[in-house]
Amino acid sequence: MTDAVSTIDVAVFGAGRIGKIHAANLARQPGVRLKYVVDVNREAAAALAAQHGAQVADIDGAIGDASIGATVICSSTDTHADLIVKSAAQNKHVFCEKPVDLTMERARMCAEAVERAGVVCMIGFQRRFDPTFAALKARLDAGEIGTPEMLVVTSRDPGAPPVDYIRRSGGIFKDMLIHDFDICRWILDDEADTLHATGSCLTDPAIADAGDIDSTAVTIRTKRGRLCQINTTRRAAYGYDQRFEVLGSTGMLQAGNIRPTEVTAYSETKVSTDVPEAFFLERYRAAYALEIAHFFDAVTHGKPVRTTVADGLKALELAEAATRSWREGRAVKLGEAA
Amino acid sequence: MTDAVSTIDVAVFGAGRIGKIHAANLARQPGVRLKYVVDVNREAAAALAAQHGAQVADIDGAIGDASIGATVICSSTDTHADLIVKSAAQNKHVFCEKPVDLTMERARMCAEAVERAGVVCMIGFQRRFDPTFAALKARLDAGEIGTPEMLVVTSRDPGAPPVDYIRRSGGIFKDMLIHDFDICRWILDDEADTLHATGSCLTDPAIADAGDIDSTAVTIRTKRGRLCQINTTRRAAYGYDQRFEVLGSTGMLQAGNIRPTEVTAYSETKVSTDVPEAFFLERYRAAYALEIAHFFDAVTHGKPVRTTVADGLKALELAEAATRSWREGRAVKLGEAA
Amino acid sequence: MTDAVSTIDVAVFGAGRIGKIHAANLARQPGVRLKYVVDVNREAAAALAAQHGAQVADIDGAIGDASIGATVICSSTDTHADLIVKSAAQNKHVFCEKPVDLTMERARMCAEAVERAGVVCMIGFQRRFDPTFAALKARLDAGEIGTPEMLVVTSRDPGAPPVDYIRRSGGIFKDMLIHDFDICRWILDDEADTLHATGSCLTDPAIADAGDIDSTAVTIRTKRGRLCQINTTRRAAYGYDQRFEVLGSTGMLQAGNIRPTEVTAYSETKVSTDVPEAFFLERYRAAYALEIAHFFDAVTHGKPVRTTVADGLKALELAEAATRSWREGRAVKLGEAA
Amino acid sequence: MTDAVSTIDVAVFGAGRIGKIHAANLARQPGVRLKYVVDVNREAAAALAAQHGAQVADIDGAIGDASIGATVICSSTDTHADLIVKSAAQNKHVFCEKPVDLTMERARMCAEAVERAGVVCMIGFQRRFDPTFAALKARLDAGEIGTPEMLVVTSRDPGAPPVDYIRRSGGIFKDMLIHDFDICRWILDDEADTLHATGSCLTDPAIADAGDIDSTAVTIRTKRGRLCQINTTRRAAYGYDQRFEVLGSTGMLQAGNIRPTEVTAYSETKVSTDVPEAFFLERYRAAYALEIAHFFDAVTHGKPVRTTVADGLKALELAEAATRSWREGRAVKLGEAA
Repeated sequence: MTDAVSTIDVAVFGAGRIGKIHAANLARQPGVRLKYVVDVNREAAAALAAQHGAQVADIDGAIGDASIGATVICSSTDTHADLIVKSAAQNKHVFCEKPVDLTMERARMCAEAVERAGVVCMIGFQRRFDPTFAALKARLDAGEIGTPEMLVVTSRDPGAPPVDYIRRSGGIFKDMLIHDFDICRWILDDEADTLHATGSCLTDPAIADAGDIDSTAVTIRTKRGRLCQINTTRRAAYGYDQRFEVLGSTGMLQAGNIRPTEVTAYSETKVSTDVPEAFFLERYRAAYALEIAHFFDAVTHGKPVRTTVADGLKALELAEAATRSWREGRAVKLGEAA
Repeated sequence: MTDAVSTIDVAVFGAGRIGKIHAANLARQPGVRLKYVVDVNREAAAALAAQHGAQVADIDGAIGDASIGATVICSSTDTHADLIVKSAAQNKHVFCEKPVDLTMERARMCAEAVERAGVVCMIGFQRRFDPTFAALKARLDAGEIGTPEMLVVTSRDPGAPPVDYIRRSGGIFKDMLIHDFDICRWILDDEADTLHATGSCLTDPAIADAGDIDSTAVTIRTKRGRLCQINTTRRAAYGYDQRFEVLGSTGMLQAGNIRPTEVTAYSETKVSTDVPEAFFLERYRAAYALEIAHFFDAVTHGKPVRTTVADGLKALELAEAATRSWREGRAVKLGEAA
Repeated sequence: MTDAVSTIDVAVFGAGRIGKIHAANLARQPGVRLKYVVDVNREAAAALAAQHGAQVADIDGAIGDASIGATVICSSTDTHADLIVKSAAQNKHVFCEKPVDLTMERARMCAEAVERAGVVCMIGFQRRFDPTFAALKARLDAGEIGTPEMLVVTSRDPGAPPVDYIRRSGGIFKDMLIHDFDICRWILDDEADTLHATGSCLTDPAIADAGDIDSTAVTIRTKRGRLCQINTTRRAAYGYDQRFEVLGSTGMLQAGNIRPTEVTAYSETKVSTDVPEAFFLERYRAAYALEIAHFFDAVTHGKPVRTTVADGLKALELAEAATRSWREGRAVKLGEAA
Repeated sequence: MTDAVSTIDVAVFGAGRIGKIHAANLARQPGVRLKYVVDVNREAAAALAAQHGAQVADIDGAIGDASIGATVICSSTDTHADLIVKSAAQNKHVFCEKPVDLTMERARMCAEAVERAGVVCMIGFQRRFDPTFAALKARLDAGEIGTPEMLVVTSRDPGAPPVDYIRRSGGIFKDMLIHDFDICRWILDDEADTLHATGSCLTDPAIADAGDIDSTAVTIRTKRGRLCQINTTRRAAYGYDQRFEVLGSTGMLQAGNIRPTEVTAYSETKVSTDVPEAFFLERYRAAYALEIAHFFDAVTHGKPVRTTVADGLKALELAEAATRSWREGRAVKLGEAA
């Protein structure tokens, strides 16, 4: 582990919630040094930089510094594509939060830039690194339940974000289900052939006014005939619900929620346990740490990353298909002329 | 309960698996007497009759006997309609296993015959009587989780029936999902607006050769925008899997499987419990007893039944829509010209 | 099963709660006929007799009837010994509720009477017939967890009986833990060497005034050094709690409670399931049916019973030792001069 | 949190398993600096020191350094007393692993030294800081289940340490149950009145040859009549088992094990989950971090610690009473002349 005489210097873009997580995690990697924090909010950038002995920089200053080996992009979605392209042009390895972009066109441009530069580009589908999900996948790959046949994904947020956010989010399929589409491809180990999506606005009429929905039901049939159903809501009163189960030819594997504590209480009328971890920062705490470690391990040792920009494109493609299916009220075939 | 000086005499049609269950259950009802067993297999009829001190009869003999107050129809699906119509014509109350018939036309004919005669006609959607499902429904109706928004139904058989059976079954949607469609209407308390069904043949190519599938993924959107996803398979290696969960505006209710025992075993590598009850006869043992008690209670006291012939028609309508959706690869609107 | 041309006629003593259970269960056995119900409360006897087409009799009339093949003793504890001795003297097989008697002397007299007559005498330790407990025992015997080393028994009633009952009960160890002592011997497959019991009166001072306690902690060390801990209370606010777990050299087996339904509810603050079945009539419903079937199967086919009068004596011996240990505040050795 | 201009310098004694844990955790505390690592094994000391930018020192060098504010004692048990006394004499705050010492006499001497010096002395009963245990305790204190009445502690190691270790360990009650005795006092919020301990050597005869046992069953009755049963083994084949449950007057609270993942697998014969976390380093990872944070918070802000040297004495007293009870085969009264 400590053969590394060299240290990799990193610039983080975005000093918000997820930027703070990644900054703290990468600061803990041996051989990795957080050099710059970049944020349009200079105060936020300064606070995060101070916490880790880093400096504030602007985009060009950070990417233009030849000593920077990698960028970690956690800024708002509309900045992703530019930062990826710029980073690649300067030969920096890139870790970028999902989604790559809200349009396929720009996302493809990113893929090409990364390809051309020959840099590592990892997309932050952190769920693949969740210990429970990863263990399930490893057991599936080891053949424990035979061939996967059906996947049921339950993916529910504890509450809707502000309508302002929703308006700029690209819609629920790109903003929220992008993760679930990645899970589908990853677990069923196959590409979508047809997709049907429907949904409703059930929690807040303001979401409908913004042209979006808050509850969705998606079905994907893969090229090999495997089936996936995804159910989501922006508002699960009991918290953040992140489960999936995969039926195989010889058994089933379920990935359950994680509870803050293992206390069970018996009252006169019920036996109760904790509700699941509150939201993604808590639920995926370990996953965030593991994905960053994976990224720097890949960068340092020239190994491939598990969640590539191609995975980002595929998930986005499914999100676009879902949006179309929902809007047009029909099943769509992947690859059909849009 | 024992005000009844009068006893109701009953004829059972069908001495197979489910006929035996119903015969045993009705024989235990106070004020109910099993008088006739009818089956094309006279030997089976004789054996069942002997067990309960009843007699063997043929259809007309049984229905023609003025002392018979009710018929219990557990014979093969293609006989249901005739027996319902004949029973109604002779003023007998009817309990009939699902489905009413494989065609909407004949099913409607049954509904009319029953209506005309003014007799009770209950369809055997026994799941509504399962103590777990019924308790969930009661708590939902009591407002425990607010308004229902999404329903996920997992309904998996432990193994496919013989292909011969499948060929005559009307297809998986009418044969197997008919129960799940009833659950959907019952739990979401709303009628379907659109439906999308897809599926695959993943377990045995002979099923595809018979023009059917063994794995399905159905989505229903109701008139009020509530969402339901149903996933089914003919072959779950771990047994009979019968769960559903309903998300409401203020919480969630899940109905889980039942285990034969509550033994938990800790080995060096895992902590394990029993797989679920093996199949429907075991899983719904209590439900079968309760539905028959409900039927005779309704008949005796002139009360409405909980699962009417209208419910049978509605479930069949959904099964037809699902078949069409699957065959045509598109979402369908309920009530559209077929 | 129906080779039996002969029918066995039975007299039931005691028309209370448990008498009703046994009467209903034995009435369902093929080849068994409830002929007499005996109770000092003639009205209760008449009601129960009527329900099963039996007659009311007095003790001598019932036992004196040569056609009676077996007696089922569910009357109050102080009548058990007399009824066992009388039944045996008239060559009737005997099923008797626990305990055999409150004194070792009279219990031994019963054992001798039964031995002399060569009749079957089964003691109602119904827990051994509970499907969960029996499955655990079978798996233990099959070597699933190696050699048993430690047993933890949790045995809690939902509420104390009236103090009047407690006063005549022989004390908590004879009245309540007698079942747990039987479980200990059955599961650890060894006899007690030393025993320590302590306890407190924590729920109702009236119990202390009656010279008893309501909460106990018992430890048994067997001849082979296996360990058993039993914890009991008369009052578990959440209901009837009947669990045990056995640690073996290669694993552990736990027997859990049974819930009325498998509904799980998610609210904003907790995930909850049902409390356990309310009390012994519900919790051991299946066990009661199975033990009666076992008794008549043994009687009819000349097979040994699983819970003999010797088991009754052994459990009573432990209850006496526990009482002494608690009263004298010291560990006692089984078999020491009392 | 960062008002602290001052930094507290720390010396860690012991560079073994637990020393490494504490060193890493304290290095993460803001305002805390690991200055010295002391170990008879200089190589181990050097490695640990290097990892955290600290220096190697000997005992007197470390304690004699006026800049050192606190010592963290993780060396072998026989060194604890000396190091506590020396630290206190030099006015250092002390965090010391359990047990304080193997003899009451020397443990009391430590308590006096600490008292005299007026320094903070915290004993490493890390279980009180486990999030599950701490949440249970908080809910108990909040009155959720009324008054505590009974406690059942299951405390099982995955395998016995080398016999050499056992020989020097002070016996199972001082080495292993010391934690459980602390749990008993903490949860039942009362002091022991009488104690009974028994046990066996069931896993390895070499343990008996060393004069010790590997399986114990302890019962404690408190001054207010509350009951506690503890069952332990050195060898649970399925791993590290750390549970307890407390019955209160109006309910029950259970603290369960933690699993590495939340995967559930359904095979043809069983439904299984992970065995518990492997051993104490994994199981109490969070607890170790929280207790060190608590210690430095107390030291920095002059707050009392939750697990004092007095708690260490009390637990040791129970361990001695248990040893005596087991050796003499009798219940003992706490405070009786030894």
